[in-house]
Amino acid sequence: METERDIIEAEAEKFDFDAAEKRIAVLQQAIKEAKIPVIVLFEGWGASGKGYIIGHLIQNFDPRSFKVYTIGERTADERRFPAMHRYFEKIPQYGRISVFDRSWYRDVSIERVEEKMSKAELDRRFKEILDFEGQLSDDGYVILKFFLRISKEEQKKRFRKLESDKATKWRVSEEDWKHHRDYEKYLHAFTEMIDRTDRPYAPWLQLDAEDKKHALALVYERVIEAMEVALENKKLKQAPSPAALRIRTDDRIIPQPIPKLSEIDLDKKYDPALYKADLKKAQKRLFELHNQLYRTRRPLIIVYEGWDAAGKGGNIKRLTQGLDPRGYEVIPVAAPTTEEIQHQYLWRFWKSLPKDGHIAIYDRSWYGRVMVERIEGFCTEAEWKRAFAEMNCFEESLHRWGAIIIKFWLHIDRDEQLRRFEERQNTPEKRWKITDEDWRNRDKWDAYETSVDEMLHYTNTEYAPWVIIESNDKKFARIRAINAVIDRIEAELEKDGDKD
Amino acid sequence: METERDIIEAEAEKFDFDAAEKRIAVLQQAIKEAKIPVIVLFEGWGASGKGYIIGHLIQNFDPRSFKVYTIGERTADERRFPAMHRYFEKIPQYGRISVFDRSWYRDVSIERVEEKMSKAELDRRFKEILDFEGQLSDDGYVILKFFLRISKEEQKKRFRKLESDKATKWRVSEEDWKHHRDYEKYLHAFTEMIDRTDRPYAPWLQLDAEDKKHALALVYERVIEAMEVALENKKLKQAPSPAALRIRTDDRIIPQPIPKLSEIDLDKKYDPALYKADLKKAQKRLFELHNQLYRTRRPLIIVYEGWDAAGKGGNIKRLTQGLDPRGYEVIPVAAPTTEEIQHQYLWRFWKSLPKDGHIAIYDRSWYGRVMVERIEGFCTEAEWKRAFAEMNCFEESLHRWGAIIIKFWLHIDRDEQLRRFEERQNTPEKRWKITDEDWRNRDKWDAYETSVDEMLHYTNTEYAPWVIIESNDKKFARIRAINAVIDRIEAELEKDGDKD
Repeated sequence: METERDIIEAEAEKFDFDAAEKRIAVLQQAIKEAKIPVIVLFEGWGASGKGYIIGHLIQNFDPRSFKVYTIGERTADERRFPAMHRYFEKIPQYGRISVFDRSWYRDVSIERVEEKMSKAELDRRFKEILDFEGQLSDDGYVILKFFLRISKEEQKKRFRKLESDKATKWRVSEEDWKHHRDYEKYLHAFTEMIDRTDRPYAPWLQLDAEDKKHALALVYERVIEAMEVALENKKLKQAPSPAALRIRTDDRIIPQPIPKLSEIDLDKKYDPALYKADLKKAQKRLFELHNQLYRTRRPLIIVYEGWDAAGKGGNIKRLTQGLDPRGYEVIPVAAPTTEEIQHQYLWRFWKSLPKDGHIAIYDRSWYGRVMVERIEGFCTEAEWKRAFAEMNCFEESLHRWGAIIIKFWLHIDRDEQLRRFEERQNTPEKRWKITDEDWRNRDKWDAYETSVDEMLHYTNTEYAPWVIIESNDKKFARIRAINAVIDRIEAELEKDGDKD
Repeated sequence: METERDIIEAEAEKFDFDAAEKRIAVLQQAIKEAKIPVIVLFEGWGASGKGYIIGHLIQNFDPRSFKVYTIGERTADERRFPAMHRYFEKIPQYGRISVFDRSWYRDVSIERVEEKMSKAELDRRFKEILDFEGQLSDDGYVILKFFLRISKEEQKKRFRKLESDKATKWRVSEEDWKHHRDYEKYLHAFTEMIDRTDRPYAPWLQLDAEDKKHALALVYERVIEAMEVALENKKLKQAPSPAALRIRTDDRIIPQPIPKLSEIDLDKKYDPALYKADLKKAQKRLFELHNQLYRTRRPLIIVYEGWDAAGKGGNIKRLTQGLDPRGYEVIPVAAPTTEEIQHQYLWRFWKSLPKDGHIAIYDRSWYGRVMVERIEGFCTEAEWKRAFAEMNCFEESLHRWGAIIIKFWLHIDRDEQLRRFEERQNTPEKRWKITDEDWRNRDKWDAYETSVDEMLHYTNTEYAPWVIIESNDKKFARIRAINAVIDRIEAELEKDGDKD
């Protein structure tokens, strides 16, 4: 009598591997030309044959086009960054393929069991994973998720077999046997993981991996299908749906009220007689707090946005003057490099994050998405409209990690800008600071003002607030910014009960 | 009576900091435009004021142009790479500045004392440092090295002061006090370090740092002078000296004899009846050895060079077919990216190294410097002529780290190449593999043959040997390559007494 296993094996025998492999190679070239990025991840039981399947799959890819990542326990260096940092870093560039042997799902399965994660923490992790995959999918990434299943009995057999061979003996660790004994506990975690993260744009395929060839055949079929569909979709170039042309927000995140730029009083001035001493005092206090952040390993992220010539550079200079240069970094954000533009737009910001305990000061930031990129048409309407929610999520991840975040809009009025532009033009050593682009941007003042007002409105969250800095008077702006940072740090440290 | 200290302080008072800071800012813009890369490193005693000086120095730089690196103890991740890896990674791109708070000199001072380094190891480390700085200097990097001196007495005073302030108390560790007690031991190490590495192209300046302002003034003076000289030199654009137009070799490294390409017998063929079984056997053996490498944490580096259409892709495919995909990576080397071309040419290869225990297979490599770059004029004559020694040193560093290295030249003759080109042209699914460039390269066969013969001659070292693979018969070439890798691994493991 034919058993189920016999049928599976017979099917695998019938599968035309040669034809499938040729098809994958051809499709991969097409995917590359179409600049479609692909993520293929494998989760599953120890000894379920992930290596075997990945080993065969990648033989069909052009080596210039893919990379395999093995995700193990977090290293000490990795622990100094937010949970999703090491995954965001590894997303493929457009047209390329990242293959993951274990992935971000390690955190909500193996790590979850081992570190006895709380329900709230687990929920947050799932949320971050769904945000991550959702954002990438929106950006055109194809995501395929495979789970390789074997029974407890089969796992034991495979561990024994590995152990019996001198060359592979070391591969089975005490850890592996521990997992084996706790098979049911992990089964529960894996099942919940799949249930909670199966999405049309990032579907799971569970494979019976007791027969390796059968599992490989299914992987080939699914990879071929996904690549064909992606190419077809790309060709169709559908018009964006009405839903895509609405500003996307996240239900959980409720921005705080913030005034419009036109409501800001720009006449504030700092008493020149007090400036020098007050600046020193503020810098000293910031220096003390910096030490405290370092000691408690909390990162601080300061975003500077503002009108051209609003005085970002000078403001940052005063802020950093008293700081230990080994603990902070100014990250100037210009147009993306050729490599950066080949990735989802937040990739370069994920990569630039400070280590815990350090300060990162962004001279311009991810908010370029909803200002210059929006106004100059460097991204589509659907892209900048969903960016508000994406940036809120990004900052929420930073906040969860422990980062203290503050964002500045350095505000001046049109007349003040003109005065400063002219001064730069007329001062030889400042002339490099002013470009034709600055003058062109100035002509678009109204469009920028609308964009900035919307940006402030949608992204002024409790955990990453905006502060509008009145900057017609530079002295006023500088002391105001440093004091805002001080207040923010003190408030956050107070929550921890960690304030001196 | 005026003491020496009084005089120093009076000098510092007289120094025009404002003028120096303006001058540095102007020079830095010029350096940026001239695309001159600058490395400024600070070594010195604990609490000698490195932070103070770096903090002031960087305030004069455009934040887009510099980065500060603090070099601490090697992390677990860093320990998986060669000693110089983490430094090479951090060299600035052309026109930018890397500022180091401690540097590669940490290894031959602090680490030397703490890890009780052997004399031979210490000599090697010094050699690597001199190679590193020499290579960068040859490439146009400006290197400035400052050592901040304070007396044992002064150090004690400063530690006490830091400890007395709540905000800075944590900065003085048990470690620091230990160093303090061993002041003389470290003094000896620092002195030898400076003596052995003071070079005209990378000079040390020792600073009396008991007066911080005085030390800062000296740093400013030296930075200004170095930038001015570098700009002047760049303007002069001297013709290369006769010495620069000789092929550079390293006295310690004696290449092994190797035949010329014209002496290779290309008629070798593999018996087709044996091929399949022998290939499987070789792959199985390689799989076993891969496990052993992984277990003993030895990295394996395989370089594939060869004529266009010599069969590199197919050869690599057979080599990797049996390997665990999580333990190897194929690194295709194409034209450098815009970021890569802004660094010394070996930078991208240092960055691409495998972790210990892993295999990196380079599909083309750093040897492009003495082939395509030489022939197409992408580098100067002086550049490719010194590259032989540079690449020998690079590979020596890899070897010292524990890497097993083997380099293949896949050799075919002109007729075979023509046959393969035509076949590619006439087969639709292979047509993407052949480009106009391939045909142009073919016309330069003689120039390439001369270059390849020279490359083999100068870089066939004992620790990183070339193997010329007769590749007119693809089957022969594939089995020959795998077996050469097997032999090389076995010979190296045997040295360790670690062979099964």
